[in-house]
Amino acid sequence: MGSPMALNLIKTGCDVTVWNRTKSKCDPLISMGAKYKPSPEEVTAACDVTFAMLADPESAMEVACGKHGAVSGMGPGKGYVDVSTVDGGTSKLISGHIKASGASFLEAPVSGSKKPAEDGQLIFLTAGDKSLYETVTPFLDIMGKSRFYLGEVGNGAAMKLIVNMIMGSMMATFSEGLLLSEKVGLDPNVLVEVVSKGAISAPMYALKGPSMVKSLYPTAFPLKHQQKDMRLALGLAESVSQPTPISAAANELYKVAKSHGLSDSDFSAVIEALKGKVQS
Amino acid sequence: MGSPMALNLIKTGCDVTVWNRTKSKCDPLISMGAKYKPSPEEVTAACDVTFAMLADPESAMEVACGKHGAVSGMGPGKGYVDVSTVDGGTSKLISGHIKASGASFLEAPVSGSKKPAEDGQLIFLTAGDKSLYETVTPFLDIMGKSRFYLGEVGNGAAMKLIVNMIMGSMMATFSEGLLLSEKVGLDPNVLVEVVSKGAISAPMYALKGPSMVKSLYPTAFPLKHQQKDMRLALGLAESVSQPTPISAAANELYKVAKSHGLSDSDFSAVIEALKGKVQS
Amino acid sequence: MGSPMALNLIKTGCDVTVWNRTKSKCDPLISMGAKYKPSPEEVTAACDVTFAMLADPESAMEVACGKHGAVSGMGPGKGYVDVSTVDGGTSKLISGHIKASGASFLEAPVSGSKKPAEDGQLIFLTAGDKSLYETVTPFLDIMGKSRFYLGEVGNGAAMKLIVNMIMGSMMATFSEGLLLSEKVGLDPNVLVEVVSKGAISAPMYALKGPSMVKSLYPTAFPLKHQQKDMRLALGLAESVSQPTPISAAANELYKVAKSHGLSDSDFSAVIEALKGKVQS
Amino acid sequence: MGSPMALNLIKTGCDVTVWNRTKSKCDPLISMGAKYKPSPEEVTAACDVTFAMLADPESAMEVACGKHGAVSGMGPGKGYVDVSTVDGGTSKLISGHIKASGASFLEAPVSGSKKPAEDGQLIFLTAGDKSLYETVTPFLDIMGKSRFYLGEVGNGAAMKLIVNMIMGSMMATFSEGLLLSEKVGLDPNVLVEVVSKGAISAPMYALKGPSMVKSLYPTAFPLKHQQKDMRLALGLAESVSQPTPISAAANELYKVAKSHGLSDSDFSAVIEALKGKVQS
Repeated sequence: MGSPMALNLIKTGCDVTVWNRTKSKCDPLISMGAKYKPSPEEVTAACDVTFAMLADPESAMEVACGKHGAVSGMGPGKGYVDVSTVDGGTSKLISGHIKASGASFLEAPVSGSKKPAEDGQLIFLTAGDKSLYETVTPFLDIMGKSRFYLGEVGNGAAMKLIVNMIMGSMMATFSEGLLLSEKVGLDPNVLVEVVSKGAISAPMYALKGPSMVKSLYPTAFPLKHQQKDMRLALGLAESVSQPTPISAAANELYKVAKSHGLSDSDFSAVIEALKGKVQS
Repeated sequence: MGSPMALNLIKTGCDVTVWNRTKSKCDPLISMGAKYKPSPEEVTAACDVTFAMLADPESAMEVACGKHGAVSGMGPGKGYVDVSTVDGGTSKLISGHIKASGASFLEAPVSGSKKPAEDGQLIFLTAGDKSLYETVTPFLDIMGKSRFYLGEVGNGAAMKLIVNMIMGSMMATFSEGLLLSEKVGLDPNVLVEVVSKGAISAPMYALKGPSMVKSLYPTAFPLKHQQKDMRLALGLAESVSQPTPISAAANELYKVAKSHGLSDSDFSAVIEALKGKVQS
Repeated sequence: MGSPMALNLIKTGCDVTVWNRTKSKCDPLISMGAKYKPSPEEVTAACDVTFAMLADPESAMEVACGKHGAVSGMGPGKGYVDVSTVDGGTSKLISGHIKASGASFLEAPVSGSKKPAEDGQLIFLTAGDKSLYETVTPFLDIMGKSRFYLGEVGNGAAMKLIVNMIMGSMMATFSEGLLLSEKVGLDPNVLVEVVSKGAISAPMYALKGPSMVKSLYPTAFPLKHQQKDMRLALGLAESVSQPTPISAAANELYKVAKSHGLSDSDFSAVIEALKGKVQS
Repeated sequence: MGSPMALNLIKTGCDVTVWNRTKSKCDPLISMGAKYKPSPEEVTAACDVTFAMLADPESAMEVACGKHGAVSGMGPGKGYVDVSTVDGGTSKLISGHIKASGASFLEAPVSGSKKPAEDGQLIFLTAGDKSLYETVTPFLDIMGKSRFYLGEVGNGAAMKLIVNMIMGSMMATFSEGLLLSEKVGLDPNVLVEVVSKGAISAPMYALKGPSMVKSLYPTAFPLKHQQKDMRLALGLAESVSQPTPISAAANELYKVAKSHGLSDSDFSAVIEALKGKVQS
């Protein structure tokens, strides 16, 4: 997802320097005018503000704090914006290292997947240094359509978990409705349409409903990641003694779906967990 | 809800005759040009097509089949459209009596409450005589923004139950998210806004979220009716052996809310069922 | 189940008159000394106290109130004890007819299946006329090991539903434990044994655990009847706004099991609802 | 719980050496004939086999591997039996240190609380060195009534979690039954008695039911520990993709009970989570 985000910055005339573990992935951006540096350290040394988009907490840690990592090139007056989705603990660790160099840190996980990234329609859930947030506002507005500043580091991660928790439960109950409509002789495609007209209409239903009716689950957000987020959200809820029975029940369905071998399908495949076995 | 629907018909120049158990409720419509008849029987005798909007199944039965009821004035060539929300069984009973007179019948429960009724933005979930559906299409399009024809009588009621089942679960998990965000130190109003920007955005959340954060539940759809619909939907699911664990868990929360004395509050008051007791 | 119960009465020297729709089923009892009458009416006319054991509410109604039914032979000074498992509504109907004849009525559903019936180890959950309860105490003590008098008619049925609700949830969570132990590499037979030694030991676990481990479910109590009882218990809970989230979740598993074609297996087959599909 | 266990060993004539962080707690045992050593290291140096009973994983680690800890006195030919309840990870860490000294290790968490400890009625769920298990069998049989050998270290902890998971769900559904019986006008004490006679009878119900009916929860096993065990069991289930919807629903009730301030009450206080709020 980093590529389309960088491309939007380049297109609007920003001075962009890029790096990727696999250099060839940078070539399209370089051909569009981006500069290239051979390590995170050299990127952060050359730039005022650096955006990091990594696949998982381990990579985010390595690129920030590893050998020739971003921290080595940071210092007072510079800023580091981590737009990866990582847990609050990892975010705090990275923040600690960056700030020890004298630089500023902003956690900024995004809500939205590949298509919104290309269209500059991401949502940024930021937390950390408020002044850095204000500095990067113009760039966030190029890459996204909305941005939120949520206070101390860790709050961005928490907000994203809560949104995904609600999303997971909504997908599960929508699945119940689709299957129930079919079982009682109604066309589930009509349910998708009826839902799209009223108070419970959500873009996700309109987007995924038609393929779910065909038992197709092209992966936009893998089911195993959705289940992991629900587990983390339930852990968060437990840490503050907040009951969440709906999400707990939904999490069980994602576990059932995983046990059916659907970990790498789209999370809408949770509907399979509600289908009866075919009897021999 | 019958008044604003009739008013929209009158405003567009339709020839409308009205009746209500309490005549004074008809006065504003009469002042706008509506004719008045003193019984359902006389309304149906005078009109080609009659729309009935009653509060509950018992009233719907009484007005259709009771003394001086609608059936007495029906006959071949006429049509009866029941836009009340009743269960499938009641709908079939009324249909049977109407059709025995030689007339046509259409079940047409609406999705949407007072405001959409006033704005001509209702959604009609119709089932029954297809030819009557085609006859009344112009009128449905005046009162609403969408209409669905779903086949045999009972299907409209079933579709509405399924939509309300999904709605009930969505409200319950949204409540979990609001409370969790507050417990971990995030502003729940920001969660409402974040949700409103993304894939899980639904008009209901934007409408009710802000008042839920203030623990206010002005009644648009009473909690006891939502719980009743969830019970009926669970019964429907059970009749076809469709598992619905999310809705079953949500139903329990509505029951908890009822036991807290919230039956007549808006169904968004289900959030109260997830709050801890204050300790003395 | 009526046969072994009657046999225990005969063996202890009681003067027993029998009737069954299929006369041949009475032959073994007749050969042991029982008298026979060709209709319920003639049985009740000849006896001071009549015990009725029928398979379902419809049969119980027919035998009590149908043509040549028990009511016709009843009158002041006589007693009718219905040991069938029927719902509270049916029980009240039968009671009304019996008492209108001047006779006494006792609802007395039994807890226990065929083996306890043979061994005189049933549990009677009685409600209705207290004086009749006292009259039949010696007979209940021959057929069973425990008896409870619960007040007004309907209470016996309610108590039985509640016991079966707890039983259904217990079986479901026991299933979770068996499968979890197996998945983490523990022998589920050892779990059965560990459970049998401690505070949560229940005869049901010891009895059914070993066959569940082998995926065998010889029917003692059909799964569909367990699911029906859970549905009725949930309805009872809803009628008094008592939340029962555990039983609601368990009910969903029994529905899943039914959708897997296990309606006529023993209710311990609910464990199948928690097993993943085998992937092809 | 260590005291009554040691006392039973002393009473049967075993040569027992004791240590406790608070020496005065050893005095009653010393007056009964036990020797005393001032550190775990000196205990293990002096004894062939050492039993360790600590309150939590941290203490178990400290006593085994801290300064002057048990490991320092261990060596070939000696055995260390940890009867504390710790998680599998801690158990494996301690095992590693003990075995590095050349000694043998046995994990042996107990099922049962203070009273069974005093009565020599504990259940040992052991795992680790089989030869050490065989060596200590006579001692386990003095302190307990049952013992299980479950294979590799970690299995004892896992078995205990699964048993406690089932226990937690059973207590939650029993609570549902008690409250439902009361709401429909049945005496919940009679439900306790009915349950005690049949297939679902469990010692836990007979022990705790009568006080639950009185809303009394004298602490035998704290609710927060039960909730922690359910969380760990759900984590274990999630790690092997085993759905456990009943336990997940039950866990939510324990969380509700915690939010009501009942963490330190007995876990039977989970029933409070199912009671409605009193309205002002």
